[in-house]
Amino acid sequence: MTATIHRLNPSGRAPSLEPMMALVANDMNQVNSVILARMQSDIPLIPELAGHLIAGGGKRMRPMLMLACARMLDYTGTRHHKLAASVEFIHTATLLHDDVVDKSDLRRGRRTANLIWGNPASVLVGDFLFSRSFELMVEDGSLKALRILSNASAVIAEGEVNQLTAQRQVETGEDRYLQIIGAKTAALFAAACRIAAVVAERPEADELALDAYGRNLGIAFQLVDDAIDYASDAETMGKGVGDDFRDGKVTLPVILAHARGSAEDRSFWRDAMHGHRIGDDDLAHAKSLLEQTGAIADTIERARHYGQRAIDALGSFGSSQAKSTLVEAVEFAIARAY
Amino acid sequence: MTATIHRLNPSGRAPSLEPMMALVANDMNQVNSVILARMQSDIPLIPELAGHLIAGGGKRMRPMLMLACARMLDYTGTRHHKLAASVEFIHTATLLHDDVVDKSDLRRGRRTANLIWGNPASVLVGDFLFSRSFELMVEDGSLKALRILSNASAVIAEGEVNQLTAQRQVETGEDRYLQIIGAKTAALFAAACRIAAVVAERPEADELALDAYGRNLGIAFQLVDDAIDYASDAETMGKGVGDDFRDGKVTLPVILAHARGSAEDRSFWRDAMHGHRIGDDDLAHAKSLLEQTGAIADTIERARHYGQRAIDALGSFGSSQAKSTLVEAVEFAIARAY
Repeated sequence: MTATIHRLNPSGRAPSLEPMMALVANDMNQVNSVILARMQSDIPLIPELAGHLIAGGGKRMRPMLMLACARMLDYTGTRHHKLAASVEFIHTATLLHDDVVDKSDLRRGRRTANLIWGNPASVLVGDFLFSRSFELMVEDGSLKALRILSNASAVIAEGEVNQLTAQRQVETGEDRYLQIIGAKTAALFAAACRIAAVVAERPEADELALDAYGRNLGIAFQLVDDAIDYASDAETMGKGVGDDFRDGKVTLPVILAHARGSAEDRSFWRDAMHGHRIGDDDLAHAKSLLEQTGAIADTIERARHYGQRAIDALGSFGSSQAKSTLVEAVEFAIARAY
Repeated sequence: MTATIHRLNPSGRAPSLEPMMALVANDMNQVNSVILARMQSDIPLIPELAGHLIAGGGKRMRPMLMLACARMLDYTGTRHHKLAASVEFIHTATLLHDDVVDKSDLRRGRRTANLIWGNPASVLVGDFLFSRSFELMVEDGSLKALRILSNASAVIAEGEVNQLTAQRQVETGEDRYLQIIGAKTAALFAAACRIAAVVAERPEADELALDAYGRNLGIAFQLVDDAIDYASDAETMGKGVGDDFRDGKVTLPVILAHARGSAEDRSFWRDAMHGHRIGDDDLAHAKSLLEQTGAIADTIERARHYGQRAIDALGSFGSSQAKSTLVEAVEFAIARAY
């Protein structure tokens, strides 16, 4: 028997999420029905505001991963429909609150809810979706799923607070940065994937493997996001380019450029992260420093590292169409950087 | 056998929460230990901010009611300690978000967290406490308690959004107002009391009786709060006097004064709720209109009605010291108005 080594080396056609979307299309229709049904309320502002974001072109990445993982485990039930909707509600609540925290005005290429309806409505509708997500989990009735998702929620919130206190602190180290994105982004990816093993009633080793897959994929996604925030235009990114720069978000590209830079460069980064150099010229200068120090290229290298770990975490699962889509999702995450 | 009729007629000494506090003091120490232990985090801002509010002189009304109800049911276990802490975390998260929504600067006589640490930190630490509260429920492991509290949380958030959309709408009717306070305030009182019957494994009739007790008590509390917002000074109230007036919160006193007032009065209320008449003179005029129309007195009469219903909801439980403290809590809620 020959070992099958999945290498993170997209060749030929560009990696895409299309195969995964096609694979789980029927399940995703069910998830979407749950999402639409359960974001309703007698208070019209709730479905109006929630719907703006939920219908606003998100990829449903986390539900999709849960569905694809469940497919890989040959799960044929329907329990994951409610749980996937629950994960999407947690994610949506987080986005609503994030946009308030960051004072964002663009998300997925559209005006943010806080810009249209104001901060109070975004905070409260986020709370509603968060509560509703727990109602869905309780309806499923698995204490294990509840434990995984309530823990992930607390970890996400901790990560957000951690990020808030690291804001503008250009001395933030790579370890702390990884801790932050591991919490605010990767924890929900990990939980979404892990729950597939819970509903399929697989042994804990499978839970942990899927948790590791989701976690590493989530980190890779966030690293690439942070890289392309400096590389992309608003249309590609669906949010303003250079937003992280202007918000004083100390992401890995900045950490590397700061650590590798001259005294003068460091002074620039410090001033920039404190909001004193946020003009277009400053952004252009930042980009040139990121280029010179190899900070963007190495951020993407780090993403490749976590991407490879994600793929290797799937090693114990036999070959299948579903597994191939999970591997390709990793390749897709990385390929966005190019 | 003679019927025992509890009448809402405080006589002799002023009604107090002291007997209830004394009754549940040992249990409350355990609840406080859980609260202190579980608001910790490696991110220092979390316990710092949460502790400001949690240690800031709150009465722990909802945990206390849960403990007293459990005592009335002769429950001798410890499961309610975690669940009471969970309820307090939900309440604290709600307060943090409320203060952001209302831009409040005073709460329980102290500067609000949003004033000290900013809105982003208050939003995110609220999210953390909310997640932590679900972790505590999951640790308890009762799906029934989880169902009651996740439902209450969603109802609270709906009530908050409902209140937000009713803000400044002076035509808000009494029914809608009752719907709002039933959701944003009374639902958590109801859930806290009901859970005592869940942990004591009592029949559903007892759950429903305690739910009704808590719900009616919560409405009475809120009605009295809304009345004394126009009557009290900042020291008594622990928040700014006339806050509701300046925030354009259409509470029952305003609804009654508006409905009963002349065309000129109505015009005043409309302008005031829209924020065009919020000076000290305007507040004084508002108070005189509330007085003339009997709006404050009748708001308190409404509170007495719900208070009496709360007491009658306890009718099926035999006499006990614990029951007496629950009756006195209702009397205390009302007596604050005098």
